[in-house]
Amino acid sequence: MKIIIIGGSAAGMGAAAKLKRNTPDAEVVVYQKSSYVSLGACGLPYVIDGKVENEKDLLSRSIAEFEKSGIQVFTNIEITKVDFDNKIVYANGVKDKYDKLIIATGARPIVPSIPGVDGEGVYSLTTLEDGVEVRDKIAKNNSIKSVAIIGGGFIGVETSVSLINMNKKVNLIEMQDTLLSKSFDQDMIHHIEDELKINGVQVYTSTQVSEILLNDKKVCGVKFSNGKSIEVEAVILSIGFQPNTSFLKETKIKLMDNGAILVNTKCETNIKDVYSGGDCSSSKNYITGKDIYSPLATVASKMAKVIADNISNKNINYVGSIQSAMIKLFSKESARTGLTELQAKAEGIDYQTVLINDKNYPSYLKGQTDISLKLIMNKKSRELIGAQIIGSDNSILRINGIVSLIWAKTKVDSALEQIDMPYAPPFSRTQDILHIALSKLNK
Amino acid sequence: MKIIIIGGSAAGMGAAAKLKRNTPDAEVVVYQKSSYVSLGACGLPYVIDGKVENEKDLLSRSIAEFEKSGIQVFTNIEITKVDFDNKIVYANGVKDKYDKLIIATGARPIVPSIPGVDGEGVYSLTTLEDGVEVRDKIAKNNSIKSVAIIGGGFIGVETSVSLINMNKKVNLIEMQDTLLSKSFDQDMIHHIEDELKINGVQVYTSTQVSEILLNDKKVCGVKFSNGKSIEVEAVILSIGFQPNTSFLKETKIKLMDNGAILVNTKCETNIKDVYSGGDCSSSKNYITGKDIYSPLATVASKMAKVIADNISNKNINYVGSIQSAMIKLFSKESARTGLTELQAKAEGIDYQTVLINDKNYPSYLKGQTDISLKLIMNKKSRELIGAQIIGSDNSILRINGIVSLIWAKTKVDSALEQIDMPYAPPFSRTQDILHIALSKLNK
Repeated sequence: MKIIIIGGSAAGMGAAAKLKRNTPDAEVVVYQKSSYVSLGACGLPYVIDGKVENEKDLLSRSIAEFEKSGIQVFTNIEITKVDFDNKIVYANGVKDKYDKLIIATGARPIVPSIPGVDGEGVYSLTTLEDGVEVRDKIAKNNSIKSVAIIGGGFIGVETSVSLINMNKKVNLIEMQDTLLSKSFDQDMIHHIEDELKINGVQVYTSTQVSEILLNDKKVCGVKFSNGKSIEVEAVILSIGFQPNTSFLKETKIKLMDNGAILVNTKCETNIKDVYSGGDCSSSKNYITGKDIYSPLATVASKMAKVIADNISNKNINYVGSIQSAMIKLFSKESARTGLTELQAKAEGIDYQTVLINDKNYPSYLKGQTDISLKLIMNKKSRELIGAQIIGSDNSILRINGIVSLIWAKTKVDSALEQIDMPYAPPFSRTQDILHIALSKLNK
Repeated sequence: MKIIIIGGSAAGMGAAAKLKRNTPDAEVVVYQKSSYVSLGACGLPYVIDGKVENEKDLLSRSIAEFEKSGIQVFTNIEITKVDFDNKIVYANGVKDKYDKLIIATGARPIVPSIPGVDGEGVYSLTTLEDGVEVRDKIAKNNSIKSVAIIGGGFIGVETSVSLINMNKKVNLIEMQDTLLSKSFDQDMIHHIEDELKINGVQVYTSTQVSEILLNDKKVCGVKFSNGKSIEVEAVILSIGFQPNTSFLKETKIKLMDNGAILVNTKCETNIKDVYSGGDCSSSKNYITGKDIYSPLATVASKMAKVIADNISNKNINYVGSIQSAMIKLFSKESARTGLTELQAKAEGIDYQTVLINDKNYPSYLKGQTDISLKLIMNKKSRELIGAQIIGSDNSILRINGIVSLIWAKTKVDSALEQIDMPYAPPFSRTQDILHIALSKLNK
């Protein structure tokens, strides 16, 4: 059996490795657009301020290692056409026949169609080259004093920290009312926004960029739709991602509205023997069961295993994700999982929330820090469906306990109130923040 | 209704506070042996080395605060007799009648019956006065150079760290083959033992003390049962605890072999209208359902609420504990929950284990540290029944995720392998240590 994989990132290479472990004699061929594979793209913001000293370290496994395990990797080849009827993929000078195909082409940054967007000094942060460019041409470049980051999602916010660390004046511009609006509710996000502002980030929310101003083709500012403008010497686009599926548009493969390949719980597309996963495909919301687009490394690596296992006839379902994510900004840490309150409302769920402000450990020990937790519970099923936590010193790793409760669909009741979380003074309180929150929900 | 509570620690004061919240017009009377209530005894080791600057901070709520909420607190009164038939408690000069009685008298340190144990310079660590004594007479006393700590449980081990911090020569002596033998298996505990040794603690395992050597009634050494002896100027006893129930021995109340008051899941004793909880009573193992003795603050605070709720006719069951605990020793942190492998074996459970040594976050970020995780799974039910984790920088808070899985009795299968724990480079890996462990168990 010959399996062709288009794309050498988390989903593609994860599936390749698992396929070879499942079925050592399968023929596994990867076509990869760039010169490397297995980029840990989540590390790119840390390249900018030198927390990652050598950007090559972001490549978690080398091509040689994959080839040693019998996987054939062809780099610098972009598949431009698939003939699904005859099971053939095409690239410039390449024509290859598959038994099973995995499409794992990932995503690219959304580029807004505004004037000046193709000017010199406009960057994004997706590839290894992007990371190096932003580091060398912005962060380490003393002639660049001021930067605009367009889009206040995870990458925009992390990049703003890295550029502050490199002594840039940072303008973080978000269209929505708050930063990270898909991930945190308004009653939690102010902690994050305050931390950014305290550390010098100029945060513009409810602000749309209408034009990137150029001077002799070089970025010299951005203009807002309210007519105001600011001077900057560089722009980073971090609005979001769109799936790399334009080569499939004229085919019969079913796509979501944003172009993501629609897959079922087996990670199968609507075309027989064609699978997809990761940032180019749909995934599933574990709580609502709905098809969603969720370009996260954690989702990609799990879908990769499901694809490989199903090709190996193990009959595994991808059960979905709850968009768990965390972020460290200066000394403030935040994590989130499940639905936000806004999302619960939009889903028409009858929900109840609780928000607790407490401390990480007992007051008698020095160094106590703040911790805030918001829980969202489905009132009818009494299951937790979302959580947001903000703290410092890794105290937010507590959220793993809530992730498991959401995953297990545990009901909030007097037995759950008694959940036996470990306690010791340097870490937590006998009645820790989760217990306080659960007992409020259980009133 | 008049409720008398004997004992003013976690269980007693927790029940008192909850009773008043449930039923504001109930008459709640507390008799407490010492002059204070609500001691956070887990903080005592941190008094020794000054991490707790003011020992009074260990009293989480003052008597005045309790009295303000309508709870009557009588201090320095030790109840010496209970007439269960006539519902009367007695102390020197006190005779008081109850409708409901809560016995929450706590525990005292086990004192071994060896020669020299009543010498000058032998201490234990249970009361606030103990903490102050060990701090002032050992830790801050420059004439004390060398100390023996007898008993390598949590308190013994934590105290050894505090005394090293105060520049003492510390000899930590444990009868069993390993330290913390009820909490960690041999294949994990060596990390902890090594950390203690590296930091200067002289660890003696498989070693029994046969005599405390005295010179003019003062401690001058300890002698081992193998005939050897070491010179020390002070001894701390941390062998374990025995319930404070000797005043009940001649009554018809049912006790466990060690003297703990036997209670059911309502925290009721065998005598009508008499409840008990905390360090003086039995509790329940959540996994095996067996009555156990588990003198932990987390257990006491949960039983306290169950007692109060049942007196308030809320019909709540105490569902048990999984002996979750954590400990920080120098830069090494450890947490555990559920059954150890040894305990699973002793219970006759058909189990499977996995032990993973990994890192806390991706290698491309500086400051990566070691993390080790052991999971114990019931092979028949495929439920996790135990976990032990060792790491640093609060990375062990991950264990909360496993506590929830044990609590929810989640089966280890391909859906659980996909559990969506949050990931970001400063905290974790896309395929984090729990995922690696679960996928090994699910092979």
